[in-house]
Amino acid sequence: MATLTYGPDATTVTIEDRALAHLQYVIFQRYRRHEPFVMTLVTGTGTDRRRRSTWMTPGAAVSFSYDSEASQQLDREWLEELMKQSYSGAGLTYIEGAEASADGESEAVVAAAGKIVDAAAEAAQAAHPARGRQRATVAAA
Amino acid sequence: MATLTYGPDATTVTIEDRALAHLQYVIFQRYRRHEPFVMTLVTGTGTDRRRRSTWMTPGAAVSFSYDSEASQQLDREWLEELMKQSYSGAGLTYIEGAEASADGESEAVVAAAGKIVDAAAEAAQAAHPARGRQRATVAAA
Repeated sequence: MATLTYGPDATTVTIEDRALAHLQYVIFQRYRRHEPFVMTLVTGTGTDRRRRSTWMTPGAAVSFSYDSEASQQLDREWLEELMKQSYSGAGLTYIEGAEASADGESEAVVAAAGKIVDAAAEAAQAAHPARGRQRATVAAA
Repeated sequence: MATLTYGPDATTVTIEDRALAHLQYVIFQRYRRHEPFVMTLVTGTGTDRRRRSTWMTPGAAVSFSYDSEASQQLDREWLEELMKQSYSGAGLTYIEGAEASADGESEAVVAAAGKIVDAAAEAAQAAHPARGRQRATVAAA
């Protein structure tokens, strides 16, 4: 795991390597532009879960520390999303564990969409047997 | 409870969640406008009660930490009042326990106003029995 040391009290927060590498890119970009901004981190589990919003300013030091010697592969879309967030009112946001649950939700949406396609195909087949079968093939492709 | 970490010595002060969320909004708003300002906090109880005035500057980091993952509902009137304060000489001010006593004062004012209305109605009735009764009905409505 990687760590971020930042803020008025030099707090050290543990963050998943790849996510931290993306936060690092955005934070350094904003600082290079001499732009302060708001960052919100939601970390910890159970009763240790905390939300912390910090005024990030290029006037204050910040450090990113990794176990690994190699740098992480960065994802352009993810960086663009984070950069956009950093200019929003809520600010740059990292929610620990959110990626896993977001994946879960995506799977649920895909499964639900699949059922809708199946139901539509059945309904179409009941109304027009020939055309219905053709549509079902397209939907499943 | 929520905490604010700020100032030259990165002091951490415990502040009621909802009040801190409102202070956060105002502080970030002023910082986004690149505007430093004065903030005064009166916190603690008994002999630990202290008043602390701090020069808040966008050049220094500040953190707001909450137990809850969800953000607070913000009250527009409260925000406007705090924002106005932040531009005043005394600055943005938070007095721990003041809300409870302010509510107490409001109740006292309402009770006193009620007594004045009653006394005025009685006096009016003594002077002009018919009109007095009518006024008393209006005052009680």
